[in-house]
Amino acid sequence: MSQPRNIIIVGGVAGGMSCATRLRRLDEKANITVIEKGPFISYANCGLPYALGGVIQDESKLNVQTVEKIQSWFNVHVRVNSELMSVDRASKTVTIRDESGATTTLPYHKLVLAMGAKPLLPKITGIDTTRVFHLHTIPDLRELENFIRTNNCKKAAVVGGGFIGVEAVENLKMLGLDVTLVEYNPHIFPPMDGDLAEILHEEMRKNGVKLLLNATLTKIVPAAGHSCSLYFEKDDPDNHPVVTIDVAVLAVGIRPRTTVVAAAGIETGSYGGIKVNEYLQTVSDPDIYAAGDMVETPNLVAGKDMITALAGPANRQGRLVADNICGRHVRYRGNVGAAICKVFGKTLGLCGFSVESLPKFMPEVKFKYITVHPPNHAGYYPGAANMTIRLAFEVPGGRILGAQIVGQEGVDKRIDVMATAMRAGMNVEDLEHLELAYSPPYNSAKDPVNMAGFVAGNVLRGDVEVAHAAEFAEGGPRKLEEYQIVDVRSVPEFERGHLVNGENVPLGNLREHIKKLDRRSKTLVLCQVGYRGYLAYRILKQSGFDDVSNLDGGFKSVLEGPYDALQAKV
Amino acid sequence: MSQPRNIIIVGGVAGGMSCATRLRRLDEKANITVIEKGPFISYANCGLPYALGGVIQDESKLNVQTVEKIQSWFNVHVRVNSELMSVDRASKTVTIRDESGATTTLPYHKLVLAMGAKPLLPKITGIDTTRVFHLHTIPDLRELENFIRTNNCKKAAVVGGGFIGVEAVENLKMLGLDVTLVEYNPHIFPPMDGDLAEILHEEMRKNGVKLLLNATLTKIVPAAGHSCSLYFEKDDPDNHPVVTIDVAVLAVGIRPRTTVVAAAGIETGSYGGIKVNEYLQTVSDPDIYAAGDMVETPNLVAGKDMITALAGPANRQGRLVADNICGRHVRYRGNVGAAICKVFGKTLGLCGFSVESLPKFMPEVKFKYITVHPPNHAGYYPGAANMTIRLAFEVPGGRILGAQIVGQEGVDKRIDVMATAMRAGMNVEDLEHLELAYSPPYNSAKDPVNMAGFVAGNVLRGDVEVAHAAEFAEGGPRKLEEYQIVDVRSVPEFERGHLVNGENVPLGNLREHIKKLDRRSKTLVLCQVGYRGYLAYRILKQSGFDDVSNLDGGFKSVLEGPYDALQAKV
Repeated sequence: MSQPRNIIIVGGVAGGMSCATRLRRLDEKANITVIEKGPFISYANCGLPYALGGVIQDESKLNVQTVEKIQSWFNVHVRVNSELMSVDRASKTVTIRDESGATTTLPYHKLVLAMGAKPLLPKITGIDTTRVFHLHTIPDLRELENFIRTNNCKKAAVVGGGFIGVEAVENLKMLGLDVTLVEYNPHIFPPMDGDLAEILHEEMRKNGVKLLLNATLTKIVPAAGHSCSLYFEKDDPDNHPVVTIDVAVLAVGIRPRTTVVAAAGIETGSYGGIKVNEYLQTVSDPDIYAAGDMVETPNLVAGKDMITALAGPANRQGRLVADNICGRHVRYRGNVGAAICKVFGKTLGLCGFSVESLPKFMPEVKFKYITVHPPNHAGYYPGAANMTIRLAFEVPGGRILGAQIVGQEGVDKRIDVMATAMRAGMNVEDLEHLELAYSPPYNSAKDPVNMAGFVAGNVLRGDVEVAHAAEFAEGGPRKLEEYQIVDVRSVPEFERGHLVNGENVPLGNLREHIKKLDRRSKTLVLCQVGYRGYLAYRILKQSGFDDVSNLDGGFKSVLEGPYDALQAKV
Repeated sequence: MSQPRNIIIVGGVAGGMSCATRLRRLDEKANITVIEKGPFISYANCGLPYALGGVIQDESKLNVQTVEKIQSWFNVHVRVNSELMSVDRASKTVTIRDESGATTTLPYHKLVLAMGAKPLLPKITGIDTTRVFHLHTIPDLRELENFIRTNNCKKAAVVGGGFIGVEAVENLKMLGLDVTLVEYNPHIFPPMDGDLAEILHEEMRKNGVKLLLNATLTKIVPAAGHSCSLYFEKDDPDNHPVVTIDVAVLAVGIRPRTTVVAAAGIETGSYGGIKVNEYLQTVSDPDIYAAGDMVETPNLVAGKDMITALAGPANRQGRLVADNICGRHVRYRGNVGAAICKVFGKTLGLCGFSVESLPKFMPEVKFKYITVHPPNHAGYYPGAANMTIRLAFEVPGGRILGAQIVGQEGVDKRIDVMATAMRAGMNVEDLEHLELAYSPPYNSAKDPVNMAGFVAGNVLRGDVEVAHAAEFAEGGPRKLEEYQIVDVRSVPEFERGHLVNGENVPLGNLREHIKKLDRRSKTLVLCQVGYRGYLAYRILKQSGFDDVSNLDGGFKSVLEGPYDALQAKV
């Protein structure tokens, strides 16, 4: 290494601290300074909801590293409670302000921007009342905890049903509060499909959460004592009445903290994040790098730069910036958007895009999708529980565009296998061939990922055509009454519930019953989860039936989704 | 489809039944016949140990499909209790014998061999005593259960510490028996490394299992009542005394059932399995296909054909044979050998080759390996437990050659991610960049797979050199006394246990203490799991120390392995 260099990193959490510690490992001589706006560095902000709920009982555990340890182990100079005021690219200096208001100007050879994002504050009357909190930092957590305790809060609302919002809901319930979740969209987790979100709606309701969907919050008005009232748009489809609560948590999204750096002429992209090249160097200045929630990086599925505000990518980006500052030329490989969330007893795993969001993010792409409900491990081994996997894939190529999984144990495993497969550029037929470790306590000889691959592969190759429950819903392109509906489940299964106009022909009887069916009618076959329906499809199709579809995901997908209208009264 | 064809499948379990059902889906007209030696088809032989232990309480659950259902749903003709006697390739017929002794000759257009493997019966005096059982089929299970119940067995031995043997041990313990495991090799699970197997030895001992390692069984002699005695080779290093038991389970391996087909001139390979092309067509006869435990298929890591006797590959091979019989030309993509086993409270995951087995299977390959001990999920989230991951990789290219994981929750996830990565041809640097779904209940922002990738990548790039505890063991290439040993853990950690001759220099003091260390001495740095040792390595190396190594996996790897001799008395 040549002369010691001044490297200044703005932001001391995921991306920034990964960068600082990696820099020190690669360069024992560099002068490394971390500037952090808040009082803590390297804290686990993903753990904040769980600390709120008491799941993590010792808040200090959230401090992954202390300033002292970082200085002692890494010889990195840390300035907490210091805010970036300006960047002067000509003189290569930054000016920061500490909590006393004093400003300091520091020279840099290389500057790393890892300032993250800030919570969005929608323009709603009363949103700045003291009863409305964020859950973005440790001070946020302390303020919220303190308010709840001091005012003996009983009723809470969480505004925003994304990852943080849903985790906040669960943890406020853990504290014993009465909790209402307010979501502007028709379903929570807007990046997933509505019918799969319905499984999670059900799980939240089962756990006593009040859900207000399609809810446009219009104002927050102080009410008796320390409480306040939430008012909603009168024209909302559900016409929600006023809700009075003691405390509200706002989690409606985040926005990159780019005001200061934009003022310095650092270019931002269409999503508001800093534009960088593949080495995470800002396109505006080769001596300035950026990482984490404030940067736009390639989404490998969409093939364009987007913001992926996730801790995993932020950490790896920070590390990679250090590599590149040290001359290693390591390319950032982009994101597939792998995410996971605990929702009471359920788990949601996401990767790529949902069926609902594909037209928005990839308007040109032609795709199909399938839904399966395989058990997490061998059905005969105790504790097996079905999960629901939806796979969207490009046609005719079969490239995987998105995986959504809802279930219990083993969802995390399958979403990570999907993420790895997508990163590797596998298509759905590659999933069929995937070799995954099998023993009865852990999975089945045909893993759920294989199963999703088989069904998607069958659709891709034209071995089966599927129809989706969503297509039969009100306003959808298909109508149940136009179909000859052949339900190939057993008689008891059929009697427990079936489609409007469904005819029960148990699979074992189908070959002899086939003459009684109309070959020229549009025919919908179905079973419980899709497998017997597929067998029936093959029998009918090879027996001269022209227009047959198998109900994707079977009757279980009808039961799980918002499809009461499709079900016959039994 | 043209004329109905006669397709005969010999073997009605994993590969055979997957083939039969896929055939029917693709060809509604074919005459499909399944010949099964035993009384059951499509049963879950992987579940047999758990049925023995009562974990699976209802044995009938092991029957994934019944003959009736297969006939009714799939219109497949099934002949159980029917053994293949001969194949006449010239006339394209097979002759089978049923339980009455009657023989039948059946014509085929296509023949599928999916007869699996049979348990090895070593040549040991008394091995055919009635107290010795296999656990390979449902009748085996019933005989064993019946013998234990009828004779009120109290003491059992399992001979063979592979997957089935270890599962049998656990389940015999579940039944309340006193269990001894007899293993010929120095450690159980011969496909894994001995020091990692030691973690599982410890788990078995903790659960009351007696382990006899390095035990060469020489004879089995009937003893008082219904019991018998096991005798061992006197020259065995551990000189095991005679063990008297009531019942023994033999699980020393399997061998493809190729006697009949070999007599028909179907060629077998160097591992005794049937030789097939990439379409799983036997190389000897294009009208004969083979699948499952009796076939040799490409091992993707070793780059040569081997037997992979696992249910997952067998199922997919059966499916693929059906595709190819129906003219689809689907190539079998080979195996990476992903396997998993529950060992009481621990889980073992394997993929590719162990460090010990690489020289045997890939004598030409140059490789290095690393060991890490990451937690399964965020350390601050309740219930985090460390796992041990070992990764072997080719140098200088970085191709992954093997992953071994021992731990508790989350091992199954990481071995499947590794298997997917290996299937995709990723190298260790690809693991560094892998994007895996993160939320505190499920993992860390840097997943254990990323961590293994980081450390392997560091070694690959020459950013750190590691020394392994195994190298310092008796007879190994390194000697502790030749090293300046710098233990950078905290004082309390050091005082709880450390290496012979270890000097404690807590990491935070290293930079100031550095002048007191000898730059020219061979230096071994270590910490608890390897991370601080790596930091120390970087500090020393960049401060002019020539010959530094970081102890792979840190002191934890010394504690976990059979390395008492390396530890100072404290």
